[in-house]
Amino acid sequence: MNFARHFDGPEGQEDMPYLLTPGPLTTSRTVKLALLADWGSRDVEFRQLVKDIRQDLLRIAGCDDSYACVIMQGSGTFAIEAALGALTPQKGSRKKSLVVANGAYGERAAQILDRIGRPYERISKTDTTQVVPEHFVHLLDDDKAISHVWFIHCETTSGIVNPLAELAAAVKLRGRISMVDAMSSFGALEINMTRDAIDVLVSSSNKCIEGIPGFSYVLVKRHLLEASAGQSHSVVLDLFDQWKGLEATGQFRFTPPTHALVAFAQALRELEDEGGVATRLKRYRRNAEVLLQGMAEIGIRPLLSGNEAGPIIQTFLTPRDSNFKFEIFYEKLRARGFAIYPGKLTQRDSFRIGTIGRLDERVMVRAVEAIKAVLADMNVKDMMPRDL
Amino acid sequence: MNFARHFDGPEGQEDMPYLLTPGPLTTSRTVKLALLADWGSRDVEFRQLVKDIRQDLLRIAGCDDSYACVIMQGSGTFAIEAALGALTPQKGSRKKSLVVANGAYGERAAQILDRIGRPYERISKTDTTQVVPEHFVHLLDDDKAISHVWFIHCETTSGIVNPLAELAAAVKLRGRISMVDAMSSFGALEINMTRDAIDVLVSSSNKCIEGIPGFSYVLVKRHLLEASAGQSHSVVLDLFDQWKGLEATGQFRFTPPTHALVAFAQALRELEDEGGVATRLKRYRRNAEVLLQGMAEIGIRPLLSGNEAGPIIQTFLTPRDSNFKFEIFYEKLRARGFAIYPGKLTQRDSFRIGTIGRLDERVMVRAVEAIKAVLADMNVKDMMPRDL
Repeated sequence: MNFARHFDGPEGQEDMPYLLTPGPLTTSRTVKLALLADWGSRDVEFRQLVKDIRQDLLRIAGCDDSYACVIMQGSGTFAIEAALGALTPQKGSRKKSLVVANGAYGERAAQILDRIGRPYERISKTDTTQVVPEHFVHLLDDDKAISHVWFIHCETTSGIVNPLAELAAAVKLRGRISMVDAMSSFGALEINMTRDAIDVLVSSSNKCIEGIPGFSYVLVKRHLLEASAGQSHSVVLDLFDQWKGLEATGQFRFTPPTHALVAFAQALRELEDEGGVATRLKRYRRNAEVLLQGMAEIGIRPLLSGNEAGPIIQTFLTPRDSNFKFEIFYEKLRARGFAIYPGKLTQRDSFRIGTIGRLDERVMVRAVEAIKAVLADMNVKDMMPRDL
Repeated sequence: MNFARHFDGPEGQEDMPYLLTPGPLTTSRTVKLALLADWGSRDVEFRQLVKDIRQDLLRIAGCDDSYACVIMQGSGTFAIEAALGALTPQKGSRKKSLVVANGAYGERAAQILDRIGRPYERISKTDTTQVVPEHFVHLLDDDKAISHVWFIHCETTSGIVNPLAELAAAVKLRGRISMVDAMSSFGALEINMTRDAIDVLVSSSNKCIEGIPGFSYVLVKRHLLEASAGQSHSVVLDLFDQWKGLEATGQFRFTPPTHALVAFAQALRELEDEGGVATRLKRYRRNAEVLLQGMAEIGIRPLLSGNEAGPIIQTFLTPRDSNFKFEIFYEKLRARGFAIYPGKLTQRDSFRIGTIGRLDERVMVRAVEAIKAVLADMNVKDMMPRDL
């Protein structure tokens, strides 16, 4: 394989598909160029770069001085487990957590609490139900043992966006700690942790900041972090020790993914250059509009409607036409330069198309054209969902 | 910063220093070029690449079909904790582990067992003591509860190499399970897990295979892995679930560091092109010889002597001359294009110089020249160790 060839085309993806997925996603040429050097993980320049990243993330999240940023090696789920392990009530405590789920990622947080033996309650709404405060505030009012509430900003299972500010306000009003999985939303949807009284937020390097995969991060109220010394069930995932290490020496306790961090620093610069989160959101919204409009013309139905469907990833219901086979649809689209994503709904056949990463409406127009051509090629005519 | 400039010089390090460290290390131009594309983590090509990497690692380690390879996101310590969490006896079991330590990395394994609440014994030898079977076989003979033995192949604390085959044979003879931290040695020192009856081995992407940091891996007897279902203390570090996921779908449960894996596939190709582990070992040995000879001429003493000092990293005793300040020495060497490594010994002032990565004796000759020039510049004359 001629790796250099990848880099000839737009964003260096000449013979690689655009990644219309929830990440890893298509990054810019310049983010990829930042990968072309080996940095020493204990070197002064690298330590400064890590410090700058941590400060930038706090700034983007609207954090005041009462918050800290801890970077964790591994995927987003590593930071989720690190945050849950450090911050939620221990077995034997009179306190417990509440997980409010409306998709696979909420359920995964509950699975982690199960594994690490932490007491919790769970509310599971369906994939298509937007979580609102009314779903859980009665539990907070009735059960004083619930001290922490975990919820998902954008549930990648369906793409649904839960109303973060409202949810956090309801938690705050009742004096509880709010913990947010903002994996897919951070960098795209505006979040102000100080204003909205969000205590803990988790996201990762390969989402809407448009970096490459390799690490994740937790933005957290400093007093919660300080109280978490010795609480983690793990050495490598110990959020407190990781933070102490970064603060004391500017270095990671264990080898960091240096290249991914250097690329992320470049991605943060490019977010700034683009005009920040608000401008990026406009681009993603336009991507989603173009995609949804094109699919509507084709006749393929989206799972969600109106405001529920965020600008991150769209779920479409699989056409009932017997000529439609997802694997063939996927391969043919990929051959035309677009990698889409399988569905994850438990109840309905579906597939997903992401609208984030270094791509704009021109790419989405071409993606819709490719979908039209592939469906014609497959002789798919009946676009109605299988279950209707 | 002009990232592209980094790539103009030898191995793309024009204005970046050579990393004379135990990793992250200097990789080849072509390994870095492999980073220039965004691969979909669930795409068929990527799944094949991951499958090939897992097979290559088993082949390099001399594993027969009774072994499996599990890749874990994060640094090497993540795979260590994953292996210990999956495979060692649980709290309340009548069995326990034995950790044989002769440096910080052995102590870290014990620290992990402490944290995850697993029963273990520990033998701690000094940094400069090469571990031999006589250090621990009496414990195996006397205490039948010891079922697993953990030791370190090359202890990066000092660079000392423990006699892996001898240690594993002593464990095997007594019917126990051997677990090896081969972080710094795998890819440089010949290891044959089948022949030497090594049950478990852990290493990482950014060591002697010469890839970039981002993941680690466990090579393990399949029957041990199969018996480890449900044993892990963690969801993300669950070795069994990670393996099951890779086997069932060819995909990672959680987002893998795609770029690091693609670069690693290229690094494996280059290991093969170089002539395999034996040829790479010759290059590293030559690097170490040139360095040790140069330092001997300067008068700076190595910590270890003879066969104990492996070809991975060399520890030197800090000169007692009051003009020698490590931070200044480091900065001046770095300005000349060489990043070295601080010491980690508990008892003696020292610094370390790595001899691994994409560099050869010509680079080491230049490094020695730079060290001479910097010492002259600092007016350091008395090279005797501080404690002599």
